[in-house]
Amino acid sequence: MTPDDAMPLDDRGLLLGDGLFETMLALDGTLPHMAAHLDRMAAGCEVLNLPFARDEAERLVRAAAPAGGRFAVRLTLTAGSGGRGLDRPAATVPRLFATAAPSAPPTTPATLIVAETRRNEGSPTARLKTLAYLDNVLARAEARAAGADEALMLNNRGEVASAGAANLFWIEGGRLFTPRLDCGALAGITRARLMALRPVEELAAGLEALDRAEAVFLTNSLIGLRPVSRLGARTFGEHPLVEQLRALLDC
Amino acid sequence: MTPDDAMPLDDRGLLLGDGLFETMLALDGTLPHMAAHLDRMAAGCEVLNLPFARDEAERLVRAAAPAGGRFAVRLTLTAGSGGRGLDRPAATVPRLFATAAPSAPPTTPATLIVAETRRNEGSPTARLKTLAYLDNVLARAEARAAGADEALMLNNRGEVASAGAANLFWIEGGRLFTPRLDCGALAGITRARLMALRPVEELAAGLEALDRAEAVFLTNSLIGLRPVSRLGARTFGEHPLVEQLRALLDC
Repeated sequence: MTPDDAMPLDDRGLLLGDGLFETMLALDGTLPHMAAHLDRMAAGCEVLNLPFARDEAERLVRAAAPAGGRFAVRLTLTAGSGGRGLDRPAATVPRLFATAAPSAPPTTPATLIVAETRRNEGSPTARLKTLAYLDNVLARAEARAAGADEALMLNNRGEVASAGAANLFWIEGGRLFTPRLDCGALAGITRARLMALRPVEELAAGLEALDRAEAVFLTNSLIGLRPVSRLGARTFGEHPLVEQLRALLDC
Repeated sequence: MTPDDAMPLDDRGLLLGDGLFETMLALDGTLPHMAAHLDRMAAGCEVLNLPFARDEAERLVRAAAPAGGRFAVRLTLTAGSGGRGLDRPAATVPRLFATAAPSAPPTTPATLIVAETRRNEGSPTARLKTLAYLDNVLARAEARAAGADEALMLNNRGEVASAGAANLFWIEGGRLFTPRLDCGALAGITRARLMALRPVEELAAGLEALDRAEAVFLTNSLIGLRPVSRLGARTFGEHPLVEQLRALLDC
């Protein structure tokens, strides 16, 4: 599909959230982490049992990325047209499209609240960027209603999972920690980049782990690394390791 | 929107599952439970903080219902066009459309497996018919892959919640039971009709409650009441109370 097209009303992405997306950074027409995003969409398609036309996806992403400036390019894959109901039709023909929107990096640290809306650790969808993203939308809306930038989401066991649209890390005793994927965290591209740069301990931890943290920060493909200045009633100042990691990820 | 329209690619229903739907029975052009469905969509809009144009919704549903035959009319509401990312734009203008598809009632009892995919009891979305329905799609796909008709879904606490596209009831000692809504069950229209006809105990129960059951059945607006003949390795014969309730609901 081209960005000027429109979606048929029988598309399963629209009707049921049956599909996936990726949001990646485009810098002056280059797509520094496109391969990792396409790898992740391919892995998600395996889980959802959908065919993935990788070459076509790459062509759409490249065509969507404007020549100059900083943009978010979103690649969307739907399960295509389907009959009524939950069952996919015998022949599943996915639809792909890509669009771009200007994306300025955040200039301030993030303020967070703890959302009431939980992540569904008992579904593979909690670890994928699916079109069924409403829990994240609701968590973010809770944050906005409370005057905060982002929501920290727990899973149903009360373990820290992620932010609404970012992975979450913290520092304690100079060591780096992040929730395990089975807590309901997305396998973030920037998360993986950071873990390739520095030792990070993946764990299942409740909110009390953040009470002991010296610093908290968020990562995603568009913000890179964003420090957290407030989590609920707790405030955090600048931390040298956070600044060091941010500089490393910017390279 | 009319059924011949198509959805703009920046619609939040398509991009994020930000919206709701209802699927209701149309019998020879009549819509016997339309008011209850519109009530439920209105309640869902309250939870999602979306305006609901009820008169327009009713008009679309009536226009979609064919004059003769048995049809499923699906009413879909999306949060409308939005900018990039999770946050809704300042002005949210929902889109509504309705479509119809032939719907024959099932002629056989249902066979069920217990799905691996869990319902997210920690989110309001588990109790709403939202466009983010992928967990239900995955649970149903598990059932189909196992040669079964439907999936029994547990929540993350291991409590019985519902089927992929139906509420679930069981009979023990001649008494009727169904999961509480806070287990992650949809507030089904047929569920409510049944509970208005007979005393039903709502509870939080694990799978062991079904081991003791004399009968299990499903309800939704299109199938009415459908007996379950198999749940995993367990089989169930006909049960007089199930047949009696099915006849009552058909009226």
